[in-house]
Amino acid sequence: MTTQKSALDAGRDIVATLNSPLEGQLAEKYDTLVPDFAESLVEWAYGRHYARPGLDLKTRQLCTISALTVLGGQTAPQLQVNIRHTLAAGASRTEIIEAIWQMAIYGGLPAAINGLNAAQECFDVIDAEAA
Amino acid sequence: MTTQKSALDAGRDIVATLNSPLEGQLAEKYDTLVPDFAESLVEWAYGRHYARPGLDLKTRQLCTISALTVLGGQTAPQLQVNIRHTLAAGASRTEIIEAIWQMAIYGGLPAAINGLNAAQECFDVIDAEAA
Amino acid sequence: MTTQKSALDAGRDIVATLNSPLEGQLAEKYDTLVPDFAESLVEWAYGRHYARPGLDLKTRQLCTISALTVLGGQTAPQLQVNIRHTLAAGASRTEIIEAIWQMAIYGGLPAAINGLNAAQECFDVIDAEAA
Amino acid sequence: MTTQKSALDAGRDIVATLNSPLEGQLAEKYDTLVPDFAESLVEWAYGRHYARPGLDLKTRQLCTISALTVLGGQTAPQLQVNIRHTLAAGASRTEIIEAIWQMAIYGGLPAAINGLNAAQECFDVIDAEAA
Amino acid sequence: MTTQKSALDAGRDIVATLNSPLEGQLAEKYDTLVPDFAESLVEWAYGRHYARPGLDLKTRQLCTISALTVLGGQTAPQLQVNIRHTLAAGASRTEIIEAIWQMAIYGGLPAAINGLNAAQECFDVIDAEAA
Amino acid sequence: MTTQKSALDAGRDIVATLNSPLEGQLAEKYDTLVPDFAESLVEWAYGRHYARPGLDLKTRQLCTISALTVLGGQTAPQLQVNIRHTLAAGASRTEIIEAIWQMAIYGGLPAAINGLNAAQECFDVIDAEAA
Repeated sequence: MTTQKSALDAGRDIVATLNSPLEGQLAEKYDTLVPDFAESLVEWAYGRHYARPGLDLKTRQLCTISALTVLGGQTAPQLQVNIRHTLAAGASRTEIIEAIWQMAIYGGLPAAINGLNAAQECFDVIDAEAA
Repeated sequence: MTTQKSALDAGRDIVATLNSPLEGQLAEKYDTLVPDFAESLVEWAYGRHYARPGLDLKTRQLCTISALTVLGGQTAPQLQVNIRHTLAAGASRTEIIEAIWQMAIYGGLPAAINGLNAAQECFDVIDAEAA
Repeated sequence: MTTQKSALDAGRDIVATLNSPLEGQLAEKYDTLVPDFAESLVEWAYGRHYARPGLDLKTRQLCTISALTVLGGQTAPQLQVNIRHTLAAGASRTEIIEAIWQMAIYGGLPAAINGLNAAQECFDVIDAEAA
Repeated sequence: MTTQKSALDAGRDIVATLNSPLEGQLAEKYDTLVPDFAESLVEWAYGRHYARPGLDLKTRQLCTISALTVLGGQTAPQLQVNIRHTLAAGASRTEIIEAIWQMAIYGGLPAAINGLNAAQECFDVIDAEAA
Repeated sequence: MTTQKSALDAGRDIVATLNSPLEGQLAEKYDTLVPDFAESLVEWAYGRHYARPGLDLKTRQLCTISALTVLGGQTAPQLQVNIRHTLAAGASRTEIIEAIWQMAIYGGLPAAINGLNAAQECFDVIDAEAA
Repeated sequence: MTTQKSALDAGRDIVATLNSPLEGQLAEKYDTLVPDFAESLVEWAYGRHYARPGLDLKTRQLCTISALTVLGGQTAPQLQVNIRHTLAAGASRTEIIEAIWQMAIYGGLPAAINGLNAAQECFDVIDAEAA
């Protein structure tokens, strides 16, 4: 059985779609501290989850946006990375903002407002990069 | 301007689609303890959030499933109500399960496993009701 | 300086006001598992916090009710103990319910609803005890 | 029935007492990103909660301070806004500090210390504004 | 490179030490709902983490006990499974209790008390099984 | 009985081992805002917990590292203080990193990554101080 091998490969296929330099960037930043960090993250997050059938990639990413929002302001860096992935998966900025603001119901207003602030900052950076 | 009135009305329209007896059930359970509880919840959650344009209802519900999962096992009752709403919004059981299990990445395995347990229990009740 | 001694004594004075059998009940339940548990809890929670000047006991208890509510449904046992302490500190049931329901803003609806459920259950037990 | 209309109006009356430019500031900052954000927040938070009878405004604000403290350091911006509202509602700085520090019992020392840091920073800004 | 294959195998070696029927039990309970659930969990949790060099298994398990405690009462089922794993890794009941109670500092008293309750219940079940 | 007195003294003995200037630094930073803050923290955290028998100091510190990691990025300041204490208690940097990264299982990837970032920053400061 080759499931393990394909989990990593399947994860790399998803990463190629969403953010191809990601594994290399993670390896450079973390693999000295935590050997195999990047490979392990790609295998688990992208190979064992995002690559699964049963839910389309764009909806998966919007679910992630909502989850990172209710987890609170400490996830702002991860929210900003995933906002870019969610745009790459085909979502509009409006869909992303709605997936954040709706979380005021479940995680409270501070979490939702911190999420909006992170999104605004991310959009501003993207616009500056495009300028 | 009639925005306030329409927030409640717009919320009631969404509730009519997802779970029409909800407002009455909430009023019966909570309005003695908290006057205006049911009306206030429908206005805020459904009128001020789910009724917004920009994200379709099915995706909104799947985002809610993911958020309730990462918030941890204490939201099991709300997860079970929202699993029914998500089915009513057109999602399959598989899509719901995927929106829960993916949360192992962001909220950790205990939260994801508690979410799966709540979903299994909810599906079992629905199947028993249908039998 | 006798601060340490008086932290425990000051804590015991507060406990005498709110719930005099508490230290004994905690000792019986936990001191075998964690030696000095009850004394340590009374010293820290009641001696080092509730006994402080600067905020009245009833307001301190209502703040605790709100905090336990936003911490989520897993604090239901502590919420029920503290609802009794808050009544003993002179708050009305309405004040307690308001301190819970307001938390829908900050901790989200699931936390607030779980808090209301815990309060309703606690009031029902108190009423049954009084009957 | 005019409940909805009055929720927004009642919310605006509370905001007028605590921080009159708030709605305008929120609208300027967020209404482009989330249409109706400011109105929606005032209606829900202030109209549907703070405006309710049954608990005085100063105690409501102190409960909010405690709740934001136990929610952890990511709520520092909201804590600082609410410290100003709590002073406007008639609480002393000492009462605010006590409502924060007591949370070491329920949310742990890191949350309480982050809350004290946010309060100290807020007091310093207020003092600098007054100088 | 054979890292992926060995992640699952390495995980299975750890599971064999701590709780050999675990993978089978998880597969029976969850693999219909989430295909590959058990294999995926063993690969990630045990292969990609517990099997790593650099920290001994007993200390890893005690760290897990502390983490599950501060995550709050909703992790009681996972805490009970891990208490058994921690005993299997060579820790004493006292070490486990201390790793729980210390968490009162960081996660607050409700989380620590819920953790003690879960441990007491787990010890009682183990004693009953041994009787 | 002299338990209370010895809790503070026992706490001071532990602090002398881990970080002798700590009580003075805390007093200078917080005792004006919260009278008795430093003494109270030393008594509770170090006297009532770390000084207890039954678990060695190095393991206690590694448990704290894991707990602060799962509590999320808002505990970065406390994580950095405790990384120094954990080194002082005899742990290696590798053991600390492993106690952080393992938390990806229980608290999710964002919490673990924020923990790694805090550790890297702390190690960099320590190295710069030593240079």
